Amino acid sequence: MHTLTALQEKFEAYFDRRHFPAHPSTLYDPTTYFLGLGGKRIRPLMCLMGNELFDEILPDAYPLATAIELFHNFTLIHDDIMDKAPLRRGKPTVHAKYGEPTALLGGDVMLVVAYDYLNRIDSPHIRRIMHRFNRTAMEVCEGQQLDMDFETQDSISLDEYIHMIGLKTSVLLAASLEMGAMLGGAGEANCNHLYQFGKKLGIAFQIQDDYLDAFGDPEKFGKQIGGDIMANKKTFLMIHALEMADADSVAELRRLISTNESDKVEKVLAIFRKSGVDAWALELKQRYVEEAARHLEDIAVTQTRKSTLKELMHYLIQRDR
Amino acid sequence: MHTLTALQEKFEAYFDRRHFPAHPSTLYDPTTYFLGLGGKRIRPLMCLMGNELFDEILPDAYPLATAIELFHNFTLIHDDIMDKAPLRRGKPTVHAKYGEPTALLGGDVMLVVAYDYLNRIDSPHIRRIMHRFNRTAMEVCEGQQLDMDFETQDSISLDEYIHMIGLKTSVLLAASLEMGAMLGGAGEANCNHLYQFGKKLGIAFQIQDDYLDAFGDPEKFGKQIGGDIMANKKTFLMIHALEMADADSVAELRRLISTNESDKVEKVLAIFRKSGVDAWALELKQRYVEEAARHLEDIAVTQTRKSTLKELMHYLIQRDR
Repeated sequence: MHTLTALQEKFEAYFDRRHFPAHPSTLYDPTTYFLGLGGKRIRPLMCLMGNELFDEILPDAYPLATAIELFHNFTLIHDDIMDKAPLRRGKPTVHAKYGEPTALLGGDVMLVVAYDYLNRIDSPHIRRIMHRFNRTAMEVCEGQQLDMDFETQDSISLDEYIHMIGLKTSVLLAASLEMGAMLGGAGEANCNHLYQFGKKLGIAFQIQDDYLDAFGDPEKFGKQIGGDIMANKKTFLMIHALEMADADSVAELRRLISTNESDKVEKVLAIFRKSGVDAWALELKQRYVEEAARHLEDIAVTQTRKSTLKELMHYLIQRDR
Repeated sequence: MHTLTALQEKFEAYFDRRHFPAHPSTLYDPTTYFLGLGGKRIRPLMCLMGNELFDEILPDAYPLATAIELFHNFTLIHDDIMDKAPLRRGKPTVHAKYGEPTALLGGDVMLVVAYDYLNRIDSPHIRRIMHRFNRTAMEVCEGQQLDMDFETQDSISLDEYIHMIGLKTSVLLAASLEMGAMLGGAGEANCNHLYQFGKKLGIAFQIQDDYLDAFGDPEKFGKQIGGDIMANKKTFLMIHALEMADADSVAELRRLISTNESDKVEKVLAIFRKSGVDAWALELKQRYVEEAARHLEDIAVTQTRKSTLKELMHYLIQRDR
């Protein structure tokens, strides 16, 4: 089995090419620019891992992994427009640099090119893979829509939030693993376990991300602490606090959300701590990690084949707490 | 062979269903609303015609035709955002009614559902069909980008304009015919002739559309005469006039484009007439119609099979002049 780093190198060797025609440059330079901003390429790696769990890595795994990465970047370009985000990975977003119409169209064409990579695959499993790809693409759109709907909604339950964040971020991780496995000829039961492994792991990762934004070590986290709080983002922590804290704390949280006072972050964190939101989040994350591990356990292949997926789990969940 | 009307009824019987899930309704109601605005459904009909030219209409022709129609509607939703158009077929556009983020996302999900219809096709020719679909989708995006680029460009040659309008409007007509033919097992030479027939016919139709906007009989045309002139749209007529009229007329045209005086339409039309742009446009259209007819002639099937395509040609080009 390949290590994460080895897979990374193999994927980059394939992916590091021009994915678009040269002309018209006004359309294709922006898409090329955006891919150049980089990223962890975690989804295509998961596709290769899913494949290698059941077979050696097939040549078709690379166009499949590329389609997944292009799809992911398409969603980022369009999400950035919808969220009016000026920066992505510290650089101007496509719409900030080239204008909204070109960003919209550039995202569209990136999705089409993703499908063109899928069409290069010559596998007896292609229709099953395409079905998962399309289903997932719809779900990711649904997640983004729900996320936008939530912005104007007064109260959101934890279940609603988990449903939304699952669609918006976890199903693509899960599907990346599963589509790789399908290519490797995996049966339905194994595919389901692998999908659930990816989905639970994705949610655990999201809880961890929300936790670290509030309680992480700024030096290790690499981002400013409290960014979500400043941006009034709905997170696992905030939603649980609004559900579970005492009436006074909830009133204070709602007041703080509507203001921008200089000690907002400290005050929110104090309420989080007082309500035990920090310990709750770590516990919830742990529950999802364990569920993921159980699904990994249940996949009917020898233990040695699972080494890279275990490595992935530790890579994603290793971060402080 | 089926007549146009018969094909229309067959397609509507298949297409008249809900193409999207019910939830979340904030995402899927807007896409359903847009499809409900109607349209001539000319592209899916062309797909059925292309199929019937070589075979009886196969069950797979309907999901293919549906994918084409959904793709076309996806481009309309996104184009309306880019063009900031408030109305489509006399009704509010998706972004005007539901906001830009939802229109953007609704277009995205419509494209995904189009691909999902393609994935229902079980044909030995599917990869060839998908390749044409993807190629065409990219070209339509390229055409839209060039159209936007032209808005800020001072002078555009007739060749540049024909290239742009071909990508933006004709390639999808051509591909609709060709993909239907591919499904029917047509060989490469026949496919090429059919594609060229569709492409030339599309350009002839566009020239006619531009002509009628300036010189049509308002009662028969059904739209206000001079709409393109009022909107300063670049059309076959305007581009040729700017290329060919005498220096004084060109200067006057440029002045008129930058103003909105009440007799703008009359003045522009007077220059068009003086420069012979009206006769030139009819001649150019005729040249494209004849080229289209020649390609139709060259398709190696019996004459009787071509009856519906001839009917289509007369249907599209029959309008006054």
